[in-house]
Amino acid sequence: MGNWRENVRSVVPYVPGEQPQFTDMIKLNTNENPYPPAPGVMQALQAFDGTRLRMYPDPNVTELQAALAEFYGVRPEQIFVGVGSDDVLAMSFLTFFNSEKPFFFPDITYSFYDVWADLLKIPYERKPLDPDFRIRTEDYEAENGGVVIANPNAPTGLLLAPEEMEQILSHNRDVVVIADEAYIDFGGTSALPLLQEYDNLLVVRTFSKSRALAGSRVGFAIGNPELIRCLWDARNSFNSYTMDAVTQKAAAAAVRDRAYFEETCRRIVRTREEAKKRLAALSFTFPDSKTNFLFIRHRELPAEKIFEALRARHIFVRHFNGERIHDYLRVTIGTDEQMEALYRALEEIEKE
Amino acid sequence: MGNWRENVRSVVPYVPGEQPQFTDMIKLNTNENPYPPAPGVMQALQAFDGTRLRMYPDPNVTELQAALAEFYGVRPEQIFVGVGSDDVLAMSFLTFFNSEKPFFFPDITYSFYDVWADLLKIPYERKPLDPDFRIRTEDYEAENGGVVIANPNAPTGLLLAPEEMEQILSHNRDVVVIADEAYIDFGGTSALPLLQEYDNLLVVRTFSKSRALAGSRVGFAIGNPELIRCLWDARNSFNSYTMDAVTQKAAAAAVRDRAYFEETCRRIVRTREEAKKRLAALSFTFPDSKTNFLFIRHRELPAEKIFEALRARHIFVRHFNGERIHDYLRVTIGTDEQMEALYRALEEIEKE
Repeated sequence: MGNWRENVRSVVPYVPGEQPQFTDMIKLNTNENPYPPAPGVMQALQAFDGTRLRMYPDPNVTELQAALAEFYGVRPEQIFVGVGSDDVLAMSFLTFFNSEKPFFFPDITYSFYDVWADLLKIPYERKPLDPDFRIRTEDYEAENGGVVIANPNAPTGLLLAPEEMEQILSHNRDVVVIADEAYIDFGGTSALPLLQEYDNLLVVRTFSKSRALAGSRVGFAIGNPELIRCLWDARNSFNSYTMDAVTQKAAAAAVRDRAYFEETCRRIVRTREEAKKRLAALSFTFPDSKTNFLFIRHRELPAEKIFEALRARHIFVRHFNGERIHDYLRVTIGTDEQMEALYRALEEIEKE
Repeated sequence: MGNWRENVRSVVPYVPGEQPQFTDMIKLNTNENPYPPAPGVMQALQAFDGTRLRMYPDPNVTELQAALAEFYGVRPEQIFVGVGSDDVLAMSFLTFFNSEKPFFFPDITYSFYDVWADLLKIPYERKPLDPDFRIRTEDYEAENGGVVIANPNAPTGLLLAPEEMEQILSHNRDVVVIADEAYIDFGGTSALPLLQEYDNLLVVRTFSKSRALAGSRVGFAIGNPELIRCLWDARNSFNSYTMDAVTQKAAAAAVRDRAYFEETCRRIVRTREEAKKRLAALSFTFPDSKTNFLFIRHRELPAEKIFEALRARHIFVRHFNGERIHDYLRVTIGTDEQMEALYRALEEIEKE
């Protein structure tokens, strides 16, 4: 037996969210969209000429890029596309965070930021949220090598107001500021209009939530053309064909159906607002989410107990073991029917 | 305007191989398979239930892993899957090459090895091929942090004999040795049987050549379960959902059709062997390729001139500007019809 083990990168293996396979289950644990993707996606799959797969896909993802540019009213050169927003974010860290100074992000936020930083040997510093889980914008005024703000933040669901985002941008003109807007389509206010004024802003989005294409792995970034060019250059020097040809077609079809997109987002927001009333009546408190999930805490029952009791009923939600958040459960907004089943189960659990 | 530009990673932008769009063209420049993927791939696309795309894909790529395990007669725990072999190779470098010592690879080989090493800050050393483009196995006996051998090598097409590969493995038991077998299915002898003896061997493969799925982005690695576990752990700590759900199905379908795979590989080998005769008759010399391309040099005409003359006829081949290889053209093996058109064009060009 050789000693190759000595040179293996040691990682703390990430345990992916549970993917239970019960047929009767209600899956509210991974912030997926409860509605199917736009009908055009299914048509694109049906119409796809499989013989074309023998050839490499378009490395520039031109069709999808053009569809996104039209949707957001920007130029195609302002759009970078990647295999999920994880890919876009990791590529952005690699491209823009090359300072000796640490880049900043909140202590409670998307859990991959520090993982990529460690992996890419980028220094970073976590800025604690206040006791109400709010970002203190003044924390981001010190010298740094970049800033990443998930907005709305996860798993809290809280939105940073546009003027607060602008405050962070105006204090950080010499570094790139990333607005990770994975959940922005559920009633949040995007930083996109700030692109006019700030050439250091990069807005990152995903198809996994509002566009119901988690299974397709699509993310993108919008920024000024120079910033976006840097991303493509870094990507192409690393791996020149990343998005498969079928996904390029399916994702472009999803983008073209604005009406379906807006209607399903509206439905999820409506269900979420109803959920706030119902869960408040059930003795839960929560930050005022602008996402497709709620981060809820029961006034009396421990989160772990509720988690297990729901699980026994094949209702799956997410529990994180982090220091300041272990009393909470993250509950994805499902269909109205799924949510009614959730409320019934929670009523039972309160009475147990 | 801010100074964020100072912290942008400077890269030499890679110029991807030409993707011309003429309808009458003969595209022999990117080593794609001239035949379509297995019929089961088209069926899998047609049968795919698009509504499932709202959910995350299987992070463990279980179905494809099982199909590959069965095909190669290994256990599923011996298979790692990634988005193209570029993804698998980059992830392998990241996972296994963490020594202070340089890892070794030939000076003329796949052009991304040094790119990933630079990106991941891994030291490396290139070992010159001999004047006949052969790997000198003794070069790989010095202390190192790992070894990567493209076998057959690209763009030379030359195969390293199994006993030479074993020699490299036996001198490097304390580091991981990667056999990048992208082109092995065209008549090469794989290192796979050496897995019995060498727990430090990782065999990397792609679906882009022999399986005609370049458009789908699928690669995989086979190794002992411990090595493969390390790869999954590193991958999952970095990006937990990489392969989209449609591709997982399509690729598994391709693997299940062994007869189609073997028949199309056999056809390409037959066309290649005929091409060797025809091109030799046309005053070309070339290493004895065991791949789906030939690396050809004309006895009199400069490569650049032939390249341009073919291009004018809408026949696209590849020309590299590297120091020892600028006299050569890399020509992908197409269908018999495409190759006949190539021979006719070359005859004309010789007479010009």
